[in-house]
Amino acid sequence: MTAAANNHSVRFSLVVLGAGPGGVDCALEAARLGLDVAVVERAELGGTCLNRGCIPTKLFLGATECVHELHAQAKLKVASGTIEVDLPALQKRKGQLLSGNRKALEKRLADSGVALFRGMGVVTSSDALTVDTENGPVTVGFDRLVIATGSRPTAFPGMEPDGDRVLDSDGILDLTEAPSSLIIVGGGVIGLELGRFFSRLGATITVVEALDRIAPWEDPEVSKTLAGLAKRDKWKLLTGKRVAKLVSKDGQAELTLESGDTLGADIALVATGRGPNTQGLGLENKGVILGRGGFIQVDEYLEAAPGISCIGDANGQAMLAHAASHQGIYAARLAAGKIEGPYAPGPMPWCIYGAPESIRVGRMVDELKAEGLSPAISRFQLAANPIAQSHAMAQGFVKVIWLDGRVAGVTAVGHGVSHLVTQATLMVRDSWTREDAENLIWAHPTLDEALQHALTAEPTDD
Amino acid sequence: MTAAANNHSVRFSLVVLGAGPGGVDCALEAARLGLDVAVVERAELGGTCLNRGCIPTKLFLGATECVHELHAQAKLKVASGTIEVDLPALQKRKGQLLSGNRKALEKRLADSGVALFRGMGVVTSSDALTVDTENGPVTVGFDRLVIATGSRPTAFPGMEPDGDRVLDSDGILDLTEAPSSLIIVGGGVIGLELGRFFSRLGATITVVEALDRIAPWEDPEVSKTLAGLAKRDKWKLLTGKRVAKLVSKDGQAELTLESGDTLGADIALVATGRGPNTQGLGLENKGVILGRGGFIQVDEYLEAAPGISCIGDANGQAMLAHAASHQGIYAARLAAGKIEGPYAPGPMPWCIYGAPESIRVGRMVDELKAEGLSPAISRFQLAANPIAQSHAMAQGFVKVIWLDGRVAGVTAVGHGVSHLVTQATLMVRDSWTREDAENLIWAHPTLDEALQHALTAEPTDD
Repeated sequence: MTAAANNHSVRFSLVVLGAGPGGVDCALEAARLGLDVAVVERAELGGTCLNRGCIPTKLFLGATECVHELHAQAKLKVASGTIEVDLPALQKRKGQLLSGNRKALEKRLADSGVALFRGMGVVTSSDALTVDTENGPVTVGFDRLVIATGSRPTAFPGMEPDGDRVLDSDGILDLTEAPSSLIIVGGGVIGLELGRFFSRLGATITVVEALDRIAPWEDPEVSKTLAGLAKRDKWKLLTGKRVAKLVSKDGQAELTLESGDTLGADIALVATGRGPNTQGLGLENKGVILGRGGFIQVDEYLEAAPGISCIGDANGQAMLAHAASHQGIYAARLAAGKIEGPYAPGPMPWCIYGAPESIRVGRMVDELKAEGLSPAISRFQLAANPIAQSHAMAQGFVKVIWLDGRVAGVTAVGHGVSHLVTQATLMVRDSWTREDAENLIWAHPTLDEALQHALTAEPTDD
Repeated sequence: MTAAANNHSVRFSLVVLGAGPGGVDCALEAARLGLDVAVVERAELGGTCLNRGCIPTKLFLGATECVHELHAQAKLKVASGTIEVDLPALQKRKGQLLSGNRKALEKRLADSGVALFRGMGVVTSSDALTVDTENGPVTVGFDRLVIATGSRPTAFPGMEPDGDRVLDSDGILDLTEAPSSLIIVGGGVIGLELGRFFSRLGATITVVEALDRIAPWEDPEVSKTLAGLAKRDKWKLLTGKRVAKLVSKDGQAELTLESGDTLGADIALVATGRGPNTQGLGLENKGVILGRGGFIQVDEYLEAAPGISCIGDANGQAMLAHAASHQGIYAARLAAGKIEGPYAPGPMPWCIYGAPESIRVGRMVDELKAEGLSPAISRFQLAANPIAQSHAMAQGFVKVIWLDGRVAGVTAVGHGVSHLVTQATLMVRDSWTREDAENLIWAHPTLDEALQHALTAEPTDD
């Protein structure tokens, strides 16, 4: 139900501030466990993930997979042809799909008996929020509060999005005309996925990354493969370059590097990072501490203060929808007294989608070596995998990182490797041995066999 | 090494008859365990799987994925265009890829010290084969023998492939001109996968199946979804129809049903099943028993007679490359004295590739009910999965079959579900509970979440 606004003062055992994936999953779990729950949301249900993040970007990549697949086969002269993507039609489909998903979310909350308050919520006393609904302020009391306010795109000074030619990821997802050239500032997940999409629509792509490689949080070999494939598709990669200024000028985006060199393009995307939505929530009244970058500091129980949990992007632990959901379910169980121990998520899967894709789960070689440990490494090249071969995209590899004969981490890059991520998460979580891989019948032919063969290959020390 | 043919009599501790996936994996494992090993192969290395089965069919489906993806988006008017597949070019690529894979196999055998004898091998004494090499007969003695001779397409009388318009799966894989119409006799895996491929090349497809549904070994709901999607693509499905006669006539294939009705098409594919290559091997000298359909009878150690194992299609247990490989590794370990217990493979994954795909692992509802058990069922519709949505192909579902609160089986049908098969195999093997699914962070958005949501949905009894 949408709570009646003439209830000027209501009270719940648990109030969740923010209806992104973390907030919604927290509320649903708390309701399932018998708590009296409300959610407060100032904008659309589903948060960044559904409306301006994971879901629209995956829709755009899925819808243009045909372009990539044709391109790959055309290189081998096996297929030829032309594909026209109708971006306004895709935007319309996006609108319908997101709206349908938002309605489904609203129905799930209502079916579970979770009250929904629409409006900005601010903590105004020790046990209540004031929600600025369209019908006036409502006081929503709580025994426990979960902050799940998420994050938004951020930009460094001098390169603020202006809604004209300089856009952030929110803005670029609404374009109805594809740019013929695109500068992407920031070579991380968001920049790479959106670059793939606009590249498929025919845009020439230039990535400007301040660090010395794209996908800088990934294994260096993964970055190298991603860079090699981007260059093969004629992307221009400017790594180790800092931006001095980025503005709209004469209907173009104009970027000035610190070196003084300038670049121009139809559109520039600023994808330099995201910051938490933690300002102006009245949290100072509750002893909540905003740490570096404005992220809310939490303890090992994900608590920001007594009776207040903070989950998802707002705490900055892992800015991923599935991390937020997992934390949200933990916070609900903590609130319901169903769990007592500290939050222990186990290995976190990370993916970059598109073509190629990459995954990362668990510990990577460099961090283990930095700790003085001696990991072993086993690998398999996708060139020898029949599914990668069939899609004419056999670059890439699967790499398994071992400690004392047990799987400590997995990373991979190449065709469709996001499909390996759950298996890899299981293997890291359960510290697989080589025997564990042998005691399973792996279907043939599958992409999964690349993981099997990496697991059973002879490990080396680099 | 290819063994020198002037060694007219040689002896090995283990001889493997047949170099398909099962035979090769058996030989490699035995060599790894220190045995002195030879492989005998009358035709190409890699057997049916590499040369006339899994690999070329997956190559054909992967190469034409662009056609399917465009078609799906075009239905939503998100994309438009035309794609021309150059079948002679694809055949050339197939030839190169298979040849490369055969050479890689030959190198792996040689690098492992496995001797390779090329020619038909026949058991001619109690401990030796005679191999009819191109340089004359060679006697190859053995302490133990592994029969891994595989299978070939079979046809019922009156519908034998003639190499003209009536082809089996071997013959149709070599076509360089796509038929404009194709009759497929047999609605199993081979027929459906090849139907998908030729459908993408523009052929009108008619499937004639004697049983009452296509994919008759799958869960009935899976068959129903496969049939619905085939009909949507304008396939004609004639189920419950028996073929009286199928011949080439005036440059067409002409099929006569038992009812007397006739059908014509450019090409007819006979995909009614496969039979074992077990005739003329001299096995009668060794006490080996050929059972129903000519399959070699084996005991719980996969032994057909003392000192003789039989693995893969020839024993008929599970006519799958990965089953053969798994059995081959067992047979090698048994031969090396590294294993003592009977063969216990655990759950076997089954897949049908294409679009849609389907998977099956473990126990299905009907067989459990037939045993008087009361399985519970939980499911998730792919319509609500963002990856299926993004590919504009959201039909299908994941279904989990439970016994006493533990996963007993998984089946699924829809976009890309072959990517769920390893996870499903693990879950069945380890008899997962709902808690096991909850104790894992599932990446979002992935197709894998369809499995997660099926695992955590409320079970019902149908």
